[in-house]
Amino acid sequence: MKNKKINFKEKFIKISDYWSPKVIAELNDYQFKLSKFKNEFITHNHQDTDEAFIVIEGTIYIQIDNTIQTINTGEMIIISKGKYHKPFAKKEAKVLIIEPRGVINTGTPIVDLTAANDVWI
Amino acid sequence: MKNKKINFKEKFIKISDYWSPKVIAELNDYQFKLSKFKNEFITHNHQDTDEAFIVIEGTIYIQIDNTIQTINTGEMIIISKGKYHKPFAKKEAKVLIIEPRGVINTGTPIVDLTAANDVWI
Repeated sequence: MKNKKINFKEKFIKISDYWSPKVIAELNDYQFKLSKFKNEFITHNHQDTDEAFIVIEGTIYIQIDNTIQTINTGEMIIISKGKYHKPFAKKEAKVLIIEPRGVINTGTPIVDLTAANDVWI
Repeated sequence: MKNKKINFKEKFIKISDYWSPKVIAELNDYQFKLSKFKNEFITHNHQDTDEAFIVIEGTIYIQIDNTIQTINTGEMIIISKGKYHKPFAKKEAKVLIIEPRGVINTGTPIVDLTAANDVWI
């Protein structure tokens, strides 16, 4: 998957479930994952890494402490290592996530919303 | 710059020069850089790392070996470690580059097009 272009729209067609990131590329030991967001995710953190969200289409919200960041198409955010955050979306939104290989979407412990890891599309 | 949203358009307003990536965010020891491309860059490689280009606006071309990848808005490419590549753009294009902190835009050696590193906007 290196040295060839990747089209986000074509990849998103292959995703039907929400909150279930699918890998589209690797940069060294980091993965680029696409995910559709809708409704509420759980509050969680990643103890060992920062996490990047880039909004490709739509609007997502991320509650951090007592504030809510509203992130629209053409915007991004870095969630810092260990920081608790709760993503949600009022309507379906399309997101590119960048983080090290092996990160679990819900953090730990494993819960209902925990998605299979390292699933490529 | 973490835990707050970043707007690409607002950042690009601060960039006037071509081929001169400016840092907008860090994810662990990786940097997110915005750059405007126009006309031709040089053929170069990065011996120690892959490199990601995400096209935010416009179209870029990257010559790799004897092929040219055409990468439009909403598309990305990972250039693999050590791979020689020559980016160019017929019209101004806006690009998000993701790579480890410290990567030099022209690879080595240092040449006219080498940009100052770690310049934040």
